[in-house]
Amino acid sequence: VPGHPSMQESKAETFARLHRADDPLLLANVWDVASAVVIEAAGAAAVATTSAGVAWSLGRADGSDLGAQRVAEVVARITAAISVPVSVDIEGGYGSSPEAVAETVNAVVRAGAVGVNLEDRRSATSLYDRSEQADRLAAARAGAGDRPVWINARTDVFLINGDAQTDTRITEALQRAVQYKQAGANSLFVPGLVDLEGLTQIVAGPLPVAVMVWPGAPTVAELTSVGVVRISLGSAIAQAAYQVANRAAKEMLGAGTYDACADSLPYDTMNEMLR
Amino acid sequence: VPGHPSMQESKAETFARLHRADDPLLLANVWDVASAVVIEAAGAAAVATTSAGVAWSLGRADGSDLGAQRVAEVVARITAAISVPVSVDIEGGYGSSPEAVAETVNAVVRAGAVGVNLEDRRSATSLYDRSEQADRLAAARAGAGDRPVWINARTDVFLINGDAQTDTRITEALQRAVQYKQAGANSLFVPGLVDLEGLTQIVAGPLPVAVMVWPGAPTVAELTSVGVVRISLGSAIAQAAYQVANRAAKEMLGAGTYDACADSLPYDTMNEMLR
Repeated sequence: VPGHPSMQESKAETFARLHRADDPLLLANVWDVASAVVIEAAGAAAVATTSAGVAWSLGRADGSDLGAQRVAEVVARITAAISVPVSVDIEGGYGSSPEAVAETVNAVVRAGAVGVNLEDRRSATSLYDRSEQADRLAAARAGAGDRPVWINARTDVFLINGDAQTDTRITEALQRAVQYKQAGANSLFVPGLVDLEGLTQIVAGPLPVAVMVWPGAPTVAELTSVGVVRISLGSAIAQAAYQVANRAAKEMLGAGTYDACADSLPYDTMNEMLR
Repeated sequence: VPGHPSMQESKAETFARLHRADDPLLLANVWDVASAVVIEAAGAAAVATTSAGVAWSLGRADGSDLGAQRVAEVVARITAAISVPVSVDIEGGYGSSPEAVAETVNAVVRAGAVGVNLEDRRSATSLYDRSEQADRLAAARAGAGDRPVWINARTDVFLINGDAQTDTRITEALQRAVQYKQAGANSLFVPGLVDLEGLTQIVAGPLPVAVMVWPGAPTVAELTSVGVVRISLGSAIAQAAYQVANRAAKEMLGAGTYDACADSLPYDTMNEMLR
């Protein structure tokens, strides 16, 4: 029974153990059941959702209010279909209040998730104050109730526009890490930072560090060398998958051929994996 | 208002007009909102769902009982997000009885669809009798009520295992076309047949002809030369999209790089298209 608490507890323990500085957790992010199934089949030890991919597949922009209920439905379908632990990107928690965050975490954990990403961005240009975000993280922990959940506290210090130098941002991220840890966070997620020297400073802080990569970013080996515990691809795979759809349509409508689909998973293989 | 009857009527007229023997309707099949949006952006004049892709994305095998309600929910999301006509693969109608077929067509038409595919396969190895399938097609027409819907009557004569020679199958398909037309079908869909001589014989029959293609199948130009009115890619694009996910995960877990995602739609482009 995928949603059974004891199995979920065991998955949560597995998921926590996978965060290792000498052998980081590698997350090829998923957005629906089929992507989760084919990525599990590729050998992934765990999967994590991309909020962007989930939103796009359901007809929303990333960062709009997709809502806890829609996300929980996707999570329930994914956890029912695969055996490895599932972590969920809940963006800003689908509400600014700690109560909203707690309800969102409760919904996705009841749907079988054993991890969440919660970000500290309030708007396109501002972050929640440190203490506000600490309250929201504490609410995330409380929302999970008795069920264990790995809280990956995302700070958008490195994504927010502004004049701040990288050193200033690193200092801010480290100060946030102190409060986020006290509030119950298990790791600090720093999208926008892949500079190895900068990461070395963040890794020396109070929380294990998670990074986001893309084609051309430092390799797994390079990032392992500075001690990060988790590396994820964000929306990159979804963007590449939908590119295939766009190219295939253009080719059919233009040249009248179908070569963009030549490299594909066989129908029977897909069907067997989803059975 | 996407679901407004008058706009739906106008889309249905457009969709019907797109079935032309000298300039066939080209369908790069979609399985969720994002695939529909990027395929519309590629210039598609209409979109059609792939039942396999929809099922896989929701965690089911193709040909299992996905159910009318789940399909209608996907259709409603797609029709809300794009402007071109949408046709829906309803497999066998999610039930063998004419009543079940009528309910399914009603659900997807109310969700904004202006076309359906209904197949005559009863099981992995057998078809409904001609008259049974004619009753099911008539029920599909009745299920749409006042709303116009293009009924693409799929026959699996060319997919079913057995000893029958191609000529025998063509004769059977043509006999079915007579009854399917009387029952209200608008076109005959013959997956499994792309032989140009065989298609020429089918095209000479009572219904306009739709074909399914894949990488390596006859080109749009070749199929236009024999007079088919509609060409679709079935699940090929979905299979290629999920292959990208499988390859990206294997590369990240193996080489520790991310090149499988290098060819991708930009995040901002995706987000703008879904806004």
